[in-house]
Amino acid sequence: MPRTAEPLIPVRVLGTSSVLPGRAVTTAEVCERAYPGRDPAELVARTGIETRWWADPETTHASLAAEAMRVALDRAGMDATQLLRLIQVNCTGGDMLLPATANAVGDALGLRGSCDCIDLNNACTGFLSALDIGARSVATGLHPVGIVVSELWSRHLDPSDPRSYVVFGDAAAALVLGPGRGREGLRASWLRNDGRLRGSVTLAHAGLTHQPEIVRFGVSNKQITQEATSAILTSARTALDLAGVTMSEVDWVLPHQPNGRMFDMLARELDIPAHKLLRVVGEIGSVGAASIPVSLDRLWRSGKVQPGQLVLLVAVGSGISYGAMIYEVGA
Amino acid sequence: MPRTAEPLIPVRVLGTSSVLPGRAVTTAEVCERAYPGRDPAELVARTGIETRWWADPETTHASLAAEAMRVALDRAGMDATQLLRLIQVNCTGGDMLLPATANAVGDALGLRGSCDCIDLNNACTGFLSALDIGARSVATGLHPVGIVVSELWSRHLDPSDPRSYVVFGDAAAALVLGPGRGREGLRASWLRNDGRLRGSVTLAHAGLTHQPEIVRFGVSNKQITQEATSAILTSARTALDLAGVTMSEVDWVLPHQPNGRMFDMLARELDIPAHKLLRVVGEIGSVGAASIPVSLDRLWRSGKVQPGQLVLLVAVGSGISYGAMIYEVGA
Repeated sequence: MPRTAEPLIPVRVLGTSSVLPGRAVTTAEVCERAYPGRDPAELVARTGIETRWWADPETTHASLAAEAMRVALDRAGMDATQLLRLIQVNCTGGDMLLPATANAVGDALGLRGSCDCIDLNNACTGFLSALDIGARSVATGLHPVGIVVSELWSRHLDPSDPRSYVVFGDAAAALVLGPGRGREGLRASWLRNDGRLRGSVTLAHAGLTHQPEIVRFGVSNKQITQEATSAILTSARTALDLAGVTMSEVDWVLPHQPNGRMFDMLARELDIPAHKLLRVVGEIGSVGAASIPVSLDRLWRSGKVQPGQLVLLVAVGSGISYGAMIYEVGA
Repeated sequence: MPRTAEPLIPVRVLGTSSVLPGRAVTTAEVCERAYPGRDPAELVARTGIETRWWADPETTHASLAAEAMRVALDRAGMDATQLLRLIQVNCTGGDMLLPATANAVGDALGLRGSCDCIDLNNACTGFLSALDIGARSVATGLHPVGIVVSELWSRHLDPSDPRSYVVFGDAAAALVLGPGRGREGLRASWLRNDGRLRGSVTLAHAGLTHQPEIVRFGVSNKQITQEATSAILTSARTALDLAGVTMSEVDWVLPHQPNGRMFDMLARELDIPAHKLLRVVGEIGSVGAASIPVSLDRLWRSGKVQPGQLVLLVAVGSGISYGAMIYEVGA
C-alpha cells in the first residue's frame, strides 16, 4: 500500500508529437542476421514485433529530439523561446556525457539562454518521471515545460547479442505542458524503483569498461516477464487506488510496450477491453522511454479523447523502475 | 529581465553531508605528471588549488553516493525507507548508462520499491537543477526527497590532457529535503542553458566515439572564464531581483568553485565580503556538481547559519548551464 496519497497535480497537455527516424526494418531482416536459418514468422509470433525503425547514421539524439519538439510546439501553437524548462530523456547516455544532451536540443531549437535544459534517465520509466517532474514544475509556476524522449537503440545493438538485436527500435516523442484548468491534470502519480533487479537489462558505460556498449539481457526472458508484469500490475492498481477509481472508469490505457507478449498479458491480467488500448509495439518495436509518449501522441491526435476522460499511463523498465499515473483530460 | 517571477517554493533542508573519497593528491604530484619540470607553486597560484581527492579504484558512484546519502539521512534523523524520491546527479555518465545509477544507490541504501530513483545531468549546474526539482516535488506533496551528487572525475583524466588533469577532483554531497514552514524555502530559483557554448568543457560518449573518455577543454581558459563569469553574474543578479533583495541583504553566498580565480573574480565583481563566502576549491579542487553542496554541507554544520538568513547559491557549468537560487533559512 502507498504511504501517501498524492493530491491532484494540475497540468495540461498542450501539444504532442512522435517521430520514427530512418527506415523500417522488418523482423525478417533482423532474424536473418541474428538467427540465420530461423523462420521469421516464429520470431514475429514470439516478440509481437513486425517492424522497427532504425535511424540513419547521421541522426543524433539532439537532431531527433529537436525534430519531435518542434512539431509538439507547433501543435501547441507555441514558439520554442516560450519554454522555461526542457527535459530530455533517453536510456542510453545521449550524444555526449558532458554537457547534457539537452543543451544541443535547445541549440537546435534556437534557444539562447531562455530556458532550463536538463537530461533525465530512469530507463523505460523515464517518460513518466519527466511527466511527474514537468507537472510539478507547472503546478509550482514554472511553465510551459517541454518533455522530449529520443531513443537510438540501434547504436547499441549487435547480432551477436540476438535477444536485444531483434526487439529494439528507434523513436522520439515530445510533449508540451502548461497549466491545468479545473480538475485537469494528474489524479495520481506513483513511481518506484527496486535496484536489486538492476541486472535484468543493462547498457554498460564503455568509457569505464572499455568494452563495446551493447544492450544486454542479464536474466531469462521468463524472469524479465515475471518481474515486469508484477511491477506493472502493482503500479496500475496503486494508481487506480490513489485516484479512487476502478479500471472500468478509465477510458484509455497507455502501457509501456516492450514486446507483444507483455502487452497481451497486461491487457488480460488487468481485464482491459481492446478498445481502451493502442497497440504500437508491432509496428515500432521496443522503443524504451519513447513507447508511452508515442502512443500518447497517437491517441491525442486520433480525435477520440474527450474532456473528463481518464487515461492510465503505466510503465516498467530496467532498474527496475516502475510506476503509473492517472491523467484526467481537460475541457 | 526574467519573464516570470517565481513564487516562493516552500522547502526545508533536513540534513546535509559531504564526502571526499580516496586520498588527497597534491598539486605538486599532478604537476610532476602533467607539466614535468614546472614549478608546482606557479600551478597552485594559477589554479588556486592545493589538493584534490581521487577515489580508490573500487569506489563507484553508487558506493560513494550511498555513503553520502546515509550520513545526510542520519543527520536528518531519518531512515532511507522514508524517502519518496531520490535524485542522483553526476556529470560523467554514472556507473552504468542503463539502468539509472540511482537504482544502485537505492539498493545500497536497502530500498526495495519504496522510492522513485532517477538520474539527472546538467553538468556543474546539476545540483541546482536537482534542488529546484526536489523543492517543487516537496511543495506539491512528494517528500522527503533525497538529492545526492557523486563526482568521480579521476576516472576521466589523463596527464596527456593537462588542463583538466590538474584541476578536477572527486567528491560527493547529499541533502534531504522536507516541507518548509512559514517563509522557509526558495525565494527565487532561476535556471538557464545556452547550448551554443556547449563545446567549452566536454566528455564524449566513448560507446559512440570509440575514443578514450577524457574531459576536454574545447576553448581557451580565458574564454571559459569570460563565459562563466558573465553567466554567473547574470544568474546572481537575476535571482536577487526575483527575490526582491540586494546583495547586502544576503548572508551567505555559495558559488560553484571550478578554480580559485573564478572564485576571486565573482567575489570582486559582486562585491561580496569574505565573511559571507566559504572557500573550498583550494582544498578539494574542481568537483563539478558537488562543489555547491559540499560548501552547503560545511556551512550548515558550521553552526553559523541563523533562522531568517538568506543564502545565495549560484552555479555555472558546461552546456553552458547556469542559474541561481535564494534560500531563506527556516526557524
